[in-house]
Parts: sequence; structure tokens; C-alpha cells
Amino acid sequence: MSRFFGVVPPVVVPLLADGQVDYPSYTRVLEHLIQGGCHGLFVLGSTSEVIFFDEATRQRIIEHSVKVVAGRLPVIVGVIDPGTERVIGHARAAQQAGADAVVVTAPFYAITNQQETMDHFRRVRGAIDIPVVAYDLPVCVHTKLARSTTVQLAREGAIQGLKDSSGDDGNTRYVILDTRDVSDFFVMTGSEIVVDSALLMGAHGVVPGLGNVDPAGYVRLWDAVQRGDAAAARAEQERLCRLFEIVWVASGRLSGGASGVGGFKTAMRRLGLIATNTMTSPRGSLNEAESQRVDEILRSVGLLAA
Amino acid sequence: MSRFFGVVPPVVVPLLADGQVDYPSYTRVLEHLIQGGCHGLFVLGSTSEVIFFDEATRQRIIEHSVKVVAGRLPVIVGVIDPGTERVIGHARAAQQAGADAVVVTAPFYAITNQQETMDHFRRVRGAIDIPVVAYDLPVCVHTKLARSTTVQLAREGAIQGLKDSSGDDGNTRYVILDTRDVSDFFVMTGSEIVVDSALLMGAHGVVPGLGNVDPAGYVRLWDAVQRGDAAAARAEQERLCRLFEIVWVASGRLSGGASGVGGFKTAMRRLGLIATNTMTSPRGSLNEAESQRVDEILRSVGLLAA
Amino acid sequence: MSRFFGVVPPVVVPLLADGQVDYPSYTRVLEHLIQGGCHGLFVLGSTSEVIFFDEATRQRIIEHSVKVVAGRLPVIVGVIDPGTERVIGHARAAQQAGADAVVVTAPFYAITNQQETMDHFRRVRGAIDIPVVAYDLPVCVHTKLARSTTVQLAREGAIQGLKDSSGDDGNTRYVILDTRDVSDFFVMTGSEIVVDSALLMGAHGVVPGLGNVDPAGYVRLWDAVQRGDAAAARAEQERLCRLFEIVWVASGRLSGGASGVGGFKTAMRRLGLIATNTMTSPRGSLNEAESQRVDEILRSVGLLAA
Amino acid sequence: MSRFFGVVPPVVVPLLADGQVDYPSYTRVLEHLIQGGCHGLFVLGSTSEVIFFDEATRQRIIEHSVKVVAGRLPVIVGVIDPGTERVIGHARAAQQAGADAVVVTAPFYAITNQQETMDHFRRVRGAIDIPVVAYDLPVCVHTKLARSTTVQLAREGAIQGLKDSSGDDGNTRYVILDTRDVSDFFVMTGSEIVVDSALLMGAHGVVPGLGNVDPAGYVRLWDAVQRGDAAAARAEQERLCRLFEIVWVASGRLSGGASGVGGFKTAMRRLGLIATNTMTSPRGSLNEAESQRVDEILRSVGLLAA
Repeated sequence: MSRFFGVVPPVVVPLLADGQVDYPSYTRVLEHLIQGGCHGLFVLGSTSEVIFFDEATRQRIIEHSVKVVAGRLPVIVGVIDPGTERVIGHARAAQQAGADAVVVTAPFYAITNQQETMDHFRRVRGAIDIPVVAYDLPVCVHTKLARSTTVQLAREGAIQGLKDSSGDDGNTRYVILDTRDVSDFFVMTGSEIVVDSALLMGAHGVVPGLGNVDPAGYVRLWDAVQRGDAAAARAEQERLCRLFEIVWVASGRLSGGASGVGGFKTAMRRLGLIATNTMTSPRGSLNEAESQRVDEILRSVGLLAA
Repeated sequence: MSRFFGVVPPVVVPLLADGQVDYPSYTRVLEHLIQGGCHGLFVLGSTSEVIFFDEATRQRIIEHSVKVVAGRLPVIVGVIDPGTERVIGHARAAQQAGADAVVVTAPFYAITNQQETMDHFRRVRGAIDIPVVAYDLPVCVHTKLARSTTVQLAREGAIQGLKDSSGDDGNTRYVILDTRDVSDFFVMTGSEIVVDSALLMGAHGVVPGLGNVDPAGYVRLWDAVQRGDAAAARAEQERLCRLFEIVWVASGRLSGGASGVGGFKTAMRRLGLIATNTMTSPRGSLNEAESQRVDEILRSVGLLAA
Repeated sequence: MSRFFGVVPPVVVPLLADGQVDYPSYTRVLEHLIQGGCHGLFVLGSTSEVIFFDEATRQRIIEHSVKVVAGRLPVIVGVIDPGTERVIGHARAAQQAGADAVVVTAPFYAITNQQETMDHFRRVRGAIDIPVVAYDLPVCVHTKLARSTTVQLAREGAIQGLKDSSGDDGNTRYVILDTRDVSDFFVMTGSEIVVDSALLMGAHGVVPGLGNVDPAGYVRLWDAVQRGDAAAARAEQERLCRLFEIVWVASGRLSGGASGVGGFKTAMRRLGLIATNTMTSPRGSLNEAESQRVDEILRSVGLLAA
Repeated sequence: MSRFFGVVPPVVVPLLADGQVDYPSYTRVLEHLIQGGCHGLFVLGSTSEVIFFDEATRQRIIEHSVKVVAGRLPVIVGVIDPGTERVIGHARAAQQAGADAVVVTAPFYAITNQQETMDHFRRVRGAIDIPVVAYDLPVCVHTKLARSTTVQLAREGAIQGLKDSSGDDGNTRYVILDTRDVSDFFVMTGSEIVVDSALLMGAHGVVPGLGNVDPAGYVRLWDAVQRGDAAAARAEQERLCRLFEIVWVASGRLSGGASGVGGFKTAMRRLGLIATNTMTSPRGSLNEAESQRVDEILRSVGLLAA
């Protein structure tokens, strides 16, 4: 098996009230995830609000992460930007800063086809010396990585893994089947709520945003699947599904993106991990009434005393 | 009327075979548009393949444009990036370099709602001293600017114009009606093929990618509408519709984006304006057979001798 | 020119409070449209809520319409159903009842491609002796009739007209250009709000649901275009755009479909044309507060005394 | 547990070369499914091409099915039509003919909201004396049944089950969790390729079109899950995933709908169950080369001797 496996949360980036990154809180989040038993970390993914950060901030976040983690876990780094050149720029910087792998989406804004998308991944891979993980995220980039695209890139060695946030579990399953003979290739699901299913299909890991709130829960789920205890895995997954409802507390009032990551931040603040639930501008943050509803959910799953 | 009106093409950025910007050709394109009678220029829009250029290249393109134009026409500059902070960075740089206005899309990649989108425009406007033009481009950013969003921003003064590439002419019409009393507010259509309609509805200008190939045609169309000659406007528009078919010559083989701008570049090469039809990587370029088909179309509309 | 041209409203079907068709009111609507100067009638379209009526009710509506109209205007009849066989059944019945043409959409529910869609139209045409009009309505059937599909069917004689409710005015324009040499082929727009544009592009008519409320307004708009008075056409169109806002009065509370046709019915009730604003179940109807807002709009455009 | 559970295939309707229903072949299909160990049958679903059949044909198919099955298994019947009144008509006829339950989609063609959709289900339920199963099929009806809609209808007793073909496994999981205390309520997945996952989440059954080709495979998968053997379930599921590739053999040439059901029919013809692979008009059928590719797949999974 590859060194990339298991529970690999996308790390939330806490902010001060003025919108600057709160590095002391960020350090606490990293330690929380490591102490929680995670097997890797995904820095600068969508949950990290990567798309709102400029080059300098991204660079500092990577460097801070690598320094705090200090080799205890693999650190994979999102290098998310619409066009190939800038993605390459981010990827080189990430490698230089010590990233163990980079995560790359299909191009976005510009309309491209699967052939152009393949060339995009090949060019990024050709520019660096660390593995590339394809990030299938049609909800953000509005292109689905076709099964044949992913499998072709895997066979060429252009990508060493797939982070699948497409919600298309049937497609995930076919990619797993088709790449079974590709040495070291790994598939991780970006889902929080069908992780047991994905692992039972043969996925090698999970990248749950909700893992920021309850890493130990996802590690228990992972361990249950490893020892073949489907019933325990399901029970833990169902508990995490109840916890996941924090992402909808502010939906309607806020955008889906703000409501989701904002739900994580609000729960993390309540658990003492971070100082504020501030979101990157122009996203709004959860208000007091919504925070209380998050507290109720935390209590209902045992993360907060009743 | 605002100083922003009339035919304002988004300027194609010609490349050398190695993908670097070909500034001598770019200068020729700018002069071609100015000599063709255009009323303004839109630098670094989608047709300029802006999303593929890094900060330094964008900056050099703006500076080169401003220097060549030398105040002969207004230069409005696209400051396209997914998140607010980086858009502000681009906008400040554009202002510093001499842009007359900046063009801003809704946030993309991140999922936002109309409220967050409004705050995005407000923040950009607050950071600079030149006008902001809203760019409604759902095909790229996957968010439609609601009529109420555009009108509210116009009334606040957060935006001074709308470049409407949504294809939703009914919505455009309502925005024109709703902002009629907002001093200096302008609406330009991004369509190449229903420009006569948009102008007859009251639009103040047009931003046609095809104007790179035939600026004089769009200027004739504009002039016909100004003098109330709907029949002449329609005849010119129909001729331009035939010319516009160059954007589909490579469709199927290339992505829609590559086929469209690639069609412009191939025609411009044939007309002696630029040196190559190379597209920004990973986009493919039109091949020889496709170039011959473009030639036929150029001949059919009188841009090339039969 | 074909005998199918001009203002051809889709006729609203008024209901009694118990949901049964109110034929006396329906007769009044037909006379209102004829007296208003319309050039044809489209019976059993989307605005007629056709999809909710069973075979017997549809048949009675057709027969009633043909009898009341009594040859004063052409009556074209929507034969809307998901699959080909049943569409043929409806089409034969419509012909037998005296329809002058039938209106046919692409298949829906089942997923079909453009080839299968063409065969669908060909089979319907082959089964009857009256013209077929293609109804391009992607918002309901979730398939867009490609330009090449429409033009091919027109050239074959499988269809004699297009009712275009796609909102894609550029495509409409190309269809008009491509079929200019097809004898008697006509294109009508289904838009209420860009009718002047469509007619100036060369469309042969308009099928406005809003024409039920104000047929004379659309006839004035048509006449203005015929005599080349673009300014008068635009002024009338802008007035009708203000009236069209009745379709959004209940949006949010009701579905878009219910809010739109419900807005027409509420206005028609207020104008004394029909007895109730009841919608076909399970659609909801406009309430009292919404009806008052409709009244205000009617007053603002001069259809109701201030 | 409800009497509705287990493997409940949607029954393919074989046709003669002229497009008429081939009842002798249909009888063979029914017996094949019963002998294969299925636990129920879904007659007149999408796989049955229901939407192409008129009232009389539908009625004869139901009556034939009920007569052949003769109480050996529950027969649930799809009553698929766009509007409520006609659905009620079909539902009453199905009940009269001996159906054990009916399957109802959200309204389609007309645009409705979740409230109107709920009223649609309530009205159908109120008109008959047998259970209603909600069919969540956004790919055909272009409306997703919201989690809250399904759960509300389940709690009211308006529906007794959900056939989930939405592909949204996370949503399915929440519906299962939310209805766990609703006596006799059942959830069945319409997926062919993630059945093991759905059953491990707590789904009560599966409605696989591919079950027409290999009912015994799905029964083995079901049995493996029942006895807690996740590894055997996964192995059988992966074999069925390989078989499922028959649905894409003709994709590209035919529509997705024709390629999918056409793949089933072609395999069934090869296995001697039915006489032709003819599809309902205007859908095309698989050709000889495609049929040979289907044969290869059948051999690769052991359904045909090598």
C-alpha cells in the first residue's frame, strides 16, 4: 500500500476577527488532528478556503503546516487555481516547502475537454518531483473527471491518487476496479457520510472536512473497517452523519460553502480549538442562534457534555 | 452618456509558438482595433485567455496596452480571479497601470450566494478609485448575477456598468429598464450574434470577441443602429453571424473554449494580424484542415479575396 | 408567407373552483383573443396546463375551441406527451377535431438523442395530414432542439414551423437564416419580453402567454414592427415587460409554473374574463395579497383604471 | 419488515420486430426472474420503457404480469405520467388489475416545487387502497425528492416506500436514518453497481435493471449481505459491475436510454430469454457489432460459455 491512506482531513484554517490567519489556533488544529490519530493531512483544500488566499498567505500556511507536522504524517497540499501555469507555480512552491504530494483539480473558469484536462495534469506532473493527486470536484470546477481520464492518467503515472468529491460512488467503484493493478495508486473519498461504503468498496482513505471536528470518530470508523467489523463501522458512520448536520444549520441564510465550513468552525470554536468562527470575506459567518443549534448537535453526539 | 459605449472588443492575446506573448503582434491587434473605429478596448477578458496568465504576465499586458493605446480610447481591464482578495490585488495593479475601469466577475470555485456576491463587488469597488464593471458570465463562473443584484449594485454605485455574457436577453432588458435613471450606468452585451437586438433594447455597447477579426463590421452595425437604420443593422449582423461560424470549425475535436478563441486567432493569422494561432496550454490549436475551413468562411463574408 | 404568422397566444384554460374546465369562461377568453386582433390561437400548450389534462378533457377542449373559433383564425393544437405513440394518438384526434396544425415537443422523461428526436418528429408527421410545428422547450422537456435538428426537419418537410421557447435567441437567429429558403417555414418566439427583437430578426410570429391578458398590446407591437416603427415597437414591448411582472408575484411561495400561469389567471379574473384563478392540482393559486399586487401592476400599465 | 424487500427487478418488456409486445417472451422473462429467486417484481418502470406505452398496452402488461405471477411474488406497478390526474387513472387501473403497490414519480414537464410535489403524492394515495412507493428519479423527471419531502410523506403514510434512483447515496442514508421508526417503511436502491453499499446502509431492497440479465447474481449478493458476509457481497457486486458494462456498449451511437435497456435486451436475447432486442420507437437498437461486444462481456462474467 501507498504511504497515503487512512483518515486525511482537509485542514480548516482559523481566522482572527479581522480575517487574518490565526496561526496559534491553526497549530492547535494540526495537533488536534495528529493526536486524534489521523494518518495524513490535506492542507489548502476547499475546506481550508484555499481559493480565497493569495500566494504569500498560501505559502506561509504550507510552511507553518510542514514545520508543525515535522514529518509525523504525510502532508499533501492543494495547489488550486484555474490555469495550468499558476498551478505549476503553486506546485513548485509546495514541493520546495516540503509537501509530500500536491492535489490538483481540472482547469476551471475556462471550458476544457477531457483531452485538455489530461494535458493539464501531465504538465503539472512534469514540472515537479512529488506525486500529483487528482481532485475530482465537479461542484466547484464544473467538470467531472471521466473514469477513462482518471484511469489513463493513473496508468501513465501522471497521477498517483484520486481524491473523489464527485458524489458519484458508482464511478469511484469503477476507478478502484480499473486501477487495482496500478502499483501504489490510491483512491480517497471526500465524502463525510458514506465513508464506510467507500472503504468497503476498496477506497484507501477518506478526506473528511468533518474530521476537523471529530478526528477520533473517523479513526474509529477506519479501524472498524480494517478489522472487518461492518456493524461497528456503520454505527460510527451514522453517529458522524448526525454530527454532519452542523453544515446545514445556516443554509438558506448563508451560501452552501459558508454554511458548511462555517459549521465546522463554529463547532471547533465551541470545542476550544479555535478563537473565532470568522469566514474569509465575502462569506458570512454563523450567528449566535445558529451557534446554539450547533451546540445542540455537538451534545447529541457526545462531543459536548449534556 | 458614459464615456464607455460603442464597440469595445475583448482583445485577443497572440502567442509565439512557445506560448510566450507575442508583443509585436499584440501591438498590431491593438492598432487594428483602433483603426477599425472601435470606441474602447477590453483587455484581459475571457477572449484574452486571462485566466491562464500569471500576475507578471497580466501586468505586462496591461502596461503594454495602455502604452500603445496612449489615451486614444478607454481601456477597461479584466481582473478575473476566484476570490476577492486576489481580485483586489489585480484591480489595484490595473489602476496603477492606467486602466480606465476594471471588469469583475462573481466569485467562482467557491459556492456563494447573491448576498456574498454583492459584498464581493462592494469590497473591490471600495479598494480602488476607478469604476467597476460587473461581468455576468455564468458559463464560466456558474453563477448568474440576478437582476436584483445588478440593479442594487448599480444604485449603490458599486458598479458603473454591466458586461452581459449570460445569453439571457430578457434579463438584460429588465436591467436596462431598471437602471435607466441611474446616471452614467451602462450595459454592454457580450454577444456577437444578437448585437442589433441588444442595441435596439437600449444597450450602450457591445464587447464582441469576433470584433478582433472584423472591427469595422461591428462599427458599421453600431453606426446603423445609431442612425436608426434597423434594416442595415440587421444585414450587417447577419453577415457577422456567418463569420461567427469560425468558432465552431474545431468544435468536437477541441473544447468549446479552444475552438472559439482558436477560430479568432486562426482568422487573424490569415488576415496577417498575428504570427501564430497558438493557444495557451493545455488548450489545443486549430489544425491545417480547420484553418482552410476558416479561410472559406472569411472568403464568404468578403474578408478575404475569393 | 405561411398562413401561420403574427400574434398566436397559447390559450389559458379557466377552471371552476372544483378544478373542472369552465367552458363559458373559456369561450370568453377565445372571443377576447379574437376581438383583440390575434392572428391565430395555440390551444393546449404549456400555458393551457395541457400536461395535467387527460385524453377526454383534451379532446373536449379542442372541439370546443374549433367550434367557437369557427374558422375565423387558424387553430394550432399542442399534442404534448412523453412518448411517440401517444403523441400520434393525440395528433390524429386533433386533426379529426379540426386542428390546422399540431405542436410537438421532443420526447421527455426518456432520455433520447438528436437522432431519436428527429425520428420522433418524422413518425408524428407521417401519421397525420396537417403540419407539425416543433416546440423547443428545454425548460420542460430538458432537451434542446439543436439548430441542425430543426433545420434538417424543416428541409425534409417533417416540420413546417418552430415555436421557440428556448430563450436562446442566437440559436433562433441561425435557424431563421438557415431556413430562409424553405418555402412556408415559420419561426415563432415563445418569449413575452423580447418579441420586438425576435420579429426584427425575422421571426414570423409570437406565442405570448401574456397575450391572454393583453392581446391588443401584442397586436400593437406586431403592427409597429410591420410598419417599420422600431421605436413604437420598443415602447410597447417595454410596457408589456412591466405587465409581465405579474408572473413573479407569487414566486417563492408557489412554483415557477404556478406563479406564472397563476399570474395570468389572476389578472384575467380581475379583468372580468374568467371566474376563478384556480390552477390545476397540485399547483397552488395566487392568494388575496398576491392578487392585489397583480391589480397594482394592471393599473400601472393602464389595463385597470387607477 | 415489510413484505416489500429484497431483489425486485424492473421487468424488461420484450418486443416483436414490429414493435408490438411479445407476450410469450415476456412470460419467459417473468418466469426467469421468479426462478432466479427474486423477492418481488416492478412492472412498468423506466426499464420497462413504460413511458412509451399507451393506456391499453400498459393495462394489458399489468394484467398479463399479475396472471403469470399468480401471487408467487408481490407485483408493484409503475404508474408514470406527468400530471396527477392521469397518474390517478393509472393507479386505479393498476389496483383493479391486482397490483400490490404502485410506484409514482414527482410530476414532470410542468415545473413544480416540493410542496406541490407532496400534494401530488397525497392525492394519488388518497385515490387508491394500495401502498404508494415514491420513485426518486431526477435523471428523468428533473426534480429531486428532498430528504424532508420523502420523510414527511413517509410519516404521514402517504408513501410506504422509496425507490431511490437519484444516485445520491448520502441522501438515501439520511432517509433511512430518518424513517427508521416508521413502521413498514422501506427504501430500495435503483442502482445496479453500489447495491452492497446500499444494503449495508440499511436499504431494504434493490431494483436492478440488470437483474433481468442475471437475477441469480443479485440474489447471491442479497443473501451474502443477509448473512453478514461483506467480502462475498463485494465480490459478487464487482462481478455484476463488470456485467453492467453492457449498458455502455452502444453509448455514443445511441442515446443513454437506448444503449442501457438495449444492452439488457441484447444480452437477454443471447441468453435465449427473448426473441429480439428491438426497442420502442424512436429508440434505436444495438447492432451486430455491439451485440458481439455484449457476448464478450457475458462470457467474461460466466453467463455464456467461453
